[in-house]
Amino acid sequence: MQSKTEVIKIKSKEKLQFLDITQRVKDFVENSKIKNGLLNIQSKHTTATVFLNENEPLLLEDMKKNLEKVAPSSEEYRHDNLDIRTVNVCDDECVNGHSHCKALYLPSNITLNLADSKLQLGRWQSILFVELDRAREREIQMQIIGE
Amino acid sequence: MQSKTEVIKIKSKEKLQFLDITQRVKDFVENSKIKNGLLNIQSKHTTATVFLNENEPLLLEDMKKNLEKVAPSSEEYRHDNLDIRTVNVCDDECVNGHSHCKALYLPSNITLNLADSKLQLGRWQSILFVELDRAREREIQMQIIGE
Amino acid sequence: MQSKTEVIKIKSKEKLQFLDITQRVKDFVENSKIKNGLLNIQSKHTTATVFLNENEPLLLEDMKKNLEKVAPSSEEYRHDNLDIRTVNVCDDECVNGHSHCKALYLPSNITLNLADSKLQLGRWQSILFVELDRAREREIQMQIIGE
Repeated sequence: MQSKTEVIKIKSKEKLQFLDITQRVKDFVENSKIKNGLLNIQSKHTTATVFLNENEPLLLEDMKKNLEKVAPSSEEYRHDNLDIRTVNVCDDECVNGHSHCKALYLPSNITLNLADSKLQLGRWQSILFVELDRAREREIQMQIIGE
Repeated sequence: MQSKTEVIKIKSKEKLQFLDITQRVKDFVENSKIKNGLLNIQSKHTTATVFLNENEPLLLEDMKKNLEKVAPSSEEYRHDNLDIRTVNVCDDECVNGHSHCKALYLPSNITLNLADSKLQLGRWQSILFVELDRAREREIQMQIIGE
Repeated sequence: MQSKTEVIKIKSKEKLQFLDITQRVKDFVENSKIKNGLLNIQSKHTTATVFLNENEPLLLEDMKKNLEKVAPSSEEYRHDNLDIRTVNVCDDECVNGHSHCKALYLPSNITLNLADSKLQLGRWQSILFVELDRAREREIQMQIIGE
């Protein structure tokens, strides 16, 4: 059994920015020389995630709109009320209760099959990163195990 | 370490059809002779997914209703507006923006523990496929690694 | 390749109780002596799940409120109508259609990277259990494979 790991560093630019990381993931898998196994792609964050879907620009707009409906930025979240909050308060604390609530319904990790030397992605499946908060430095960690 | 893979082919019949694939998954695990490891079940599609829940017919109706609330078929999606869309347009393009938005909140893959020669499913857990688009040919790929 | 498994037993106390299991997971990983691989944390239930997010008490209240919006306890679910339901009816059957529908949008499992002898959790990522039904006895199974 072999195990390889690598981090994708992302400087996100704005709320609800989507970024296609499919090619960077494929390059990592190819360089690993592992032919059969599992690849796990894990976000290291609670307000930025990864998921599989079609990378079509108008669809990404539909998704933004839908995510805003599920956990609207315009609503009030107790997490953002610094008059009452005492836990995990940082110097650069921002209004991001909505981001955490959006993240609740998106995967923190996706696991993909690697079979016959090929990452098993379907025709329309792209690996997408989404920033749910504001412009921030992000890390997505890939780990592959197999032989 | 050993690795085995197999594809479940499904011809779905209609939008929001649920299909219980638990037995087909269990057969694959048993035939693999692998006793301890991880099983990953991955949808190869962006409008059809897999998830774990109870297979009770009335509950499946509740889930259909809830999925329709989260991303209604009746709403307009920019992905479906072929007057403005230029990317990934196919000959058989259908109105399925709602299907992609439903899929956003469901898992593309589920990973299950295989311990002591047994797929670790709880009493009420069934492995369910759901078609979020129309009648289509679908592939769910299973991969098991372990020893 | 090595494989280890362990179950976390939880006696939940009420609907929408959150429990931080991060330390119990870290202890298991450390005791396993496995340095590189994948850890899968799987709920054995259809109305209790695990997920990654920030463990901040006010945020957990925001999440409760949001989960109630996605699948309200106050709505009627066909799963709870014992006048018409015939499948999987138990002696201790409770009104929990809403719990299953909430679970539909939360992960049954999360897979985490284990690299350089360290479980790869980001600064704000806690591993949280959530009870979506009533007070019940629950099992979360961890499995690690690697070397």
